Amino acid sequence: MRSRMAEAGVDSFWIAHPANVRYLCGFTGSNGIGLMTTDGFLLGTDGRYVTQCAQECTDVELVVDRDTVRGLALRVRGHVAIEADRVTVNQHQIIADRVTTLPVSGWVEGVRVVKDAEEESYIRQACQISDDALESLLPKISVGMTERDVARALEGEMLDRGAEGLAFESIVAGGPHSAIPHHQPTQRPLESGDLLKIDFGARVAGYHADQTRTFVMGRAAAWQTEIHTVVAQAQARGREALSGGVSLVSIDDASRVVITAAGYADNYPHGLGHGLGLEIHEAPMLGARSTGILHAGVPVTIEPGIYLPGRGGVRIEDTMWVTDSGSESLTRLPRELLVL
Amino acid sequence: MRSRMAEAGVDSFWIAHPANVRYLCGFTGSNGIGLMTTDGFLLGTDGRYVTQCAQECTDVELVVDRDTVRGLALRVRGHVAIEADRVTVNQHQIIADRVTTLPVSGWVEGVRVVKDAEEESYIRQACQISDDALESLLPKISVGMTERDVARALEGEMLDRGAEGLAFESIVAGGPHSAIPHHQPTQRPLESGDLLKIDFGARVAGYHADQTRTFVMGRAAAWQTEIHTVVAQAQARGREALSGGVSLVSIDDASRVVITAAGYADNYPHGLGHGLGLEIHEAPMLGARSTGILHAGVPVTIEPGIYLPGRGGVRIEDTMWVTDSGSESLTRLPRELLVL
Repeated sequence: MRSRMAEAGVDSFWIAHPANVRYLCGFTGSNGIGLMTTDGFLLGTDGRYVTQCAQECTDVELVVDRDTVRGLALRVRGHVAIEADRVTVNQHQIIADRVTTLPVSGWVEGVRVVKDAEEESYIRQACQISDDALESLLPKISVGMTERDVARALEGEMLDRGAEGLAFESIVAGGPHSAIPHHQPTQRPLESGDLLKIDFGARVAGYHADQTRTFVMGRAAAWQTEIHTVVAQAQARGREALSGGVSLVSIDDASRVVITAAGYADNYPHGLGHGLGLEIHEAPMLGARSTGILHAGVPVTIEPGIYLPGRGGVRIEDTMWVTDSGSESLTRLPRELLVL
Repeated sequence: MRSRMAEAGVDSFWIAHPANVRYLCGFTGSNGIGLMTTDGFLLGTDGRYVTQCAQECTDVELVVDRDTVRGLALRVRGHVAIEADRVTVNQHQIIADRVTTLPVSGWVEGVRVVKDAEEESYIRQACQISDDALESLLPKISVGMTERDVARALEGEMLDRGAEGLAFESIVAGGPHSAIPHHQPTQRPLESGDLLKIDFGARVAGYHADQTRTFVMGRAAAWQTEIHTVVAQAQARGREALSGGVSLVSIDDASRVVITAAGYADNYPHGLGHGLGLEIHEAPMLGARSTGILHAGVPVTIEPGIYLPGRGGVRIEDTMWVTDSGSESLTRLPRELLVL
């Protein structure tokens, strides 16, 4: 990071994104701004976090102020790189009133893409917990349970298995709700004939898992089997396309062509997948507009979907671990259309 | 809002804060930008949310693009007010490349301060659920349970009573952890003699409750009773100081003086309280640097605390409803030091 600062000709680097601050210094609180200098690291926070900082990040110099941005800005000197995807217009004004700023993007996110052994271990644990939780829950899901019932039971299974929390608020979507990609669980009871889409994951030591499976209640209609088959094929093509060194866009292409060929291009309104780690969505993005190359040692999701408004939708998603020669699936539940 | 736009001489208003977007048009998804024009409202989002938008916000014109900011920026004309506390430096550059921008703050937040009858009803429900949940849990808390056990059981009690989710990740802090204002629950078991600080709340229809109680396990030491008594007095003075028309800073003052007089000023490193609604922290802030006046019809927290690093801490917090002549406590559990 410091060689990057030197190349850019800046004396310090203002780090506003909480996940980046955590990555660099270990602070997990909700109010922290990092300031990397040529020979040190300052952490701006407020008085609520002083005791926590003493435990989590002993190598930093604390700058405590109820107005954290102004307090830290008083310590800025010379030319300062700022995280332009996070610093707001108002925060920037406070900094720019004192020093010259250089808007930069992705400096820390770029370093975070390839995970080290400890990070990999946490992601593997989170994926294993997610697998075990849903596998254990499946025999208990039945017609009449509400989406919220299912979400809550699934979350209990994850916490029972050592998750520190949820990767995100679980998506449990039955019947027509399954056509909503990011549906929030409701009190709607599951009915026979419903598609049931479950998108969920556990969090371990700050690291996320992400998995989606789609089931059918009672019996599958022909249209449900058809879209599930297409999505499963597209998902397999996406997984097979993963390997260190390939272009990001080629992975989306390899999967998307299956859905397009089946006539559902307009019913697939999102990218193929995304990196994950300290955030549920982080670099690299795997989409039709992605640029750049995939690296080994990177966890990504592969999650194509087909959504038919008013009827239902299917998404199948795994968290994958990219290697030099291919990939490994960290989430491993069966991918065929299971009837519950 | 439109008269404010006219006063400021702008043709449109770029609304980047998700809670403000939800407040104005009802959209609850994670990716939405509002653009209020002189005679309409555009909602920028991506394809994942088209079906959801059709259900949640029928009066808006949808602008769908995977690059939501660029997609919506193509529709901007003339002079545009932007939410300068939310729009990032990079987003601003995209907008400012096309039109003249006016950074503004608090336009929607200001309108959100005073709640209408429907909002009040949701907050009252969330507070009632929170009260009932902790009251029901108290007889079950015992030495040997971990902080995470307590947090999870409490959350179950809230969901059982109809909470749609948590207001925030519950703070359950035992023994020395109680000295950390925003502690995250761990596997540490409760021990006899521990202070036990629980800060939690339910969420109903997007609206938040917020309450803190501090207990002692087994028996109270003299220092625990002392700091609890001081905090309880400070909290009572804060509640009594609430009334429509008083200055915000006077409320913090009325409470803080109790803690200062007892010699604990340095152990109280935060403000007295905050507004809440669609966000857990929103205007008005009640602190030593607050400016402005409190209004009736506003929910605020009153939550002084004393934290002794390495030993323990006490915070007592209620969600209060401000009226023309005083206030009403929406959270109502006993405030004395209960021994569990």
